Parts: sequence; structure tokens; C-alpha cells
Amino acid sequence: MSIQSKNSEPREWEIQSRHLHADCRVFSVLRKKCKHPDRDSTRDFFSLSSPDWVNVVAVTPQREVLLIKQFRFGVEDFALEIPGGIIDEGEDAVTAGLRELKEETGYVGENARIIGNVWPNPAIMDNRCWFVLVKNVVKKFESEWDGDEEIGVSLEEMETVFRMVEEGTIKHALVVSALSLFRAIWAEKPG
Amino acid sequence: MSIQSKNSEPREWEIQSRHLHADCRVFSVLRKKCKHPDRDSTRDFFSLSSPDWVNVVAVTPQREVLLIKQFRFGVEDFALEIPGGIIDEGEDAVTAGLRELKEETGYVGENARIIGNVWPNPAIMDNRCWFVLVKNVVKKFESEWDGDEEIGVSLEEMETVFRMVEEGTIKHALVVSALSLFRAIWAEKPG
Repeated sequence: MSIQSKNSEPREWEIQSRHLHADCRVFSVLRKKCKHPDRDSTRDFFSLSSPDWVNVVAVTPQREVLLIKQFRFGVEDFALEIPGGIIDEGEDAVTAGLRELKEETGYVGENARIIGNVWPNPAIMDNRCWFVLVKNVVKKFESEWDGDEEIGVSLEEMETVFRMVEEGTIKHALVVSALSLFRAIWAEKPG
Repeated sequence: MSIQSKNSEPREWEIQSRHLHADCRVFSVLRKKCKHPDRDSTRDFFSLSSPDWVNVVAVTPQREVLLIKQFRFGVEDFALEIPGGIIDEGEDAVTAGLRELKEETGYVGENARIIGNVWPNPAIMDNRCWFVLVKNVVKKFESEWDGDEEIGVSLEEMETVFRMVEEGTIKHALVVSALSLFRAIWAEKPG
């Protein structure tokens, strides 16, 4: 890969301090004092600290994908997503994914495995979102929502779900990312 | 679409107030007092308010895609991305995309158009990220970085870029989302 830069490769800043700026329950706002290795001055940058997240692509034996619908307080609107949530301390991504799947929808499945991860926003967040694929999911339990959760669950044909991404019906960037990685894997080796 | 919910569709909460929690330059942290239409109590939720963003898929006449590399203060690491930034007040997404492309890389192109948008994170952010496709890009200018910017620029074959997403070399969720929408459009009508 040929990098064309003004002088050289971009340099790694030194993070001189990290201060909690505000604690917001699911994330904390940090002010970081940073120093560029070649420049005199330091600069304050703000970012969010949060545990890793997990999103679950849950596929039924009929090759449908499980979607959920929630009211989201950022956009103040409903979002069509896939199940997921915050990975608890000490929990691995697959365990967290299966837990969130069961809690949010009552579905359980087989052969759960990680299919990739992304940085939700490397500019202002420090965490990763892991993507877990679960096959042969079936509804075996009642959902167990957290205090503020209220979740609509639906099943859609896989091709319909991919079209919903392309048409913008599904527009949560993490869900678009998860389905993109899933689509490539499924195209290579379906089922 | 059949929604299976405990009782009904999820309900829309009423946002009773919005308070600035902390002003962090590129985003502000809001505390929102919210009331569920069927429940007695109110709850505070935290979210970030930010202008819309734009990301640019810039394709050369040789069908290469323009990538940039930056040190990112959220993850405290380098991220491989596509050009982009914050849309200025009163600016449209295409104009902002072309401006960021030129400032960050010195490249200009033709037939710029929006190919989609996502919510970066509807749970905790209120903004959209717009994706702009620019064709036949060529380097005509020197880059004009903002004070803290330092950007490595490279060109990669389109198929290589798609593989970098699948392999996790490109792992910024907004870039993965942009390239996913671009890939579907390009597959349908290349060039």
C-alpha cells in the first residue's frame, strides 16, 4: 500500500492524561490532553469510554433474519436493528450475544461464533462492537426486558433484509456493518 | 412485517426536556428527561448532539478507491478510512463531501451524488452520516489539513478494499457501512 503523505506517515500522539468529563451511565465522557511527537503544543480532545458491544445476526432454519424495533433516545425515533447490547465485565462476546438474544427476543440457537468486529467510531469512542452469528434460532422463552426496554420482534427473509439495508429502512451503522460482514460470509458458504 | 411484541408495538417516549450536559467541541452531551406514554415515572437518558457527517467514496478512472489513514483519539490508534468530516451549517452533503475530499487529499472528481445515509448510533447520537460517491477523482491540489490533521493517502483496487472490510483491516463502522452501500450500487451498475 503506497501512502502519500506530506512528509511522512502520520505520527502517533502521546496521550498525556485522561480525565472523566461526565459520567453518563452507558458511557463516560473523557477529556484527553494529547501531544503530537513533532509539535510543541498539547491539545485537548474529547472522547467517550464505553464497554464493548455485541450485535447478533440470528438466522432461523428457514433462513430468516431476526430483527428488532426499539425507540432510540439519540434520534428520538424507532430504529430497526438486530439484537445486541453491552458486553458485561468478564463476559465474552459470544456469551453476551446469546444472552442479549434470549433476553430481548426469547430466541435461542446453535453454533454461535464471532464473524467480525468494528470500531463504532474510532474518532470519539474507544470501544469495539463484536458481531456474532447464531444459526437455527427458535423462540423457546419469553423475552426478559430491562426496565426501559420495549422491543418489537420480527422475522424477515434474508434477501429482504439485505434490500432493507440498501433502501435505508435499516440505517443503524452498526447493524449495516454486521449485515455487510454476514452477507459476505453467507455468499461464500451459505447455511 | 409481522411484529411479535409482548402486548403491542413499542411506544414512542415523550422527550420532556433536553439539557446540555457537557460541550465537547465536535459534540455536546445532553441529558434528556423522558416519559413513556404508559408508565408513571420519567427517566433520564444521555445522548450526544452533533451536526451531520459526510463520508466520501472516491473512485479513480482506474477503479481504485481513495483511502486515508489518521490517528484517532477515541481508540488511540490509527484508522484506515475514507475521506469525510462534519457538514458545516448551511452546507449540503455533496458540497461538504467534495470540500473534505479536496482538503484532506487534494483530489477532485465528477458526478458527485448521495448514495445513502445511516444513523451513526441512534441509541446515543442524534445525527446522520451521509455517503457521497465521487467518480473519476484525480489529485489536482495540495491537501489543506486542519490544525490537528495529519493524513496518509493511498489508492487501493476496489476488490482489495472490499476484502479489507471482510478481513477487518478497515473497521470503522461508518466506512464499512459506506462501502457496503457502494458495493451494492456498483454491483448493479458498475462505472
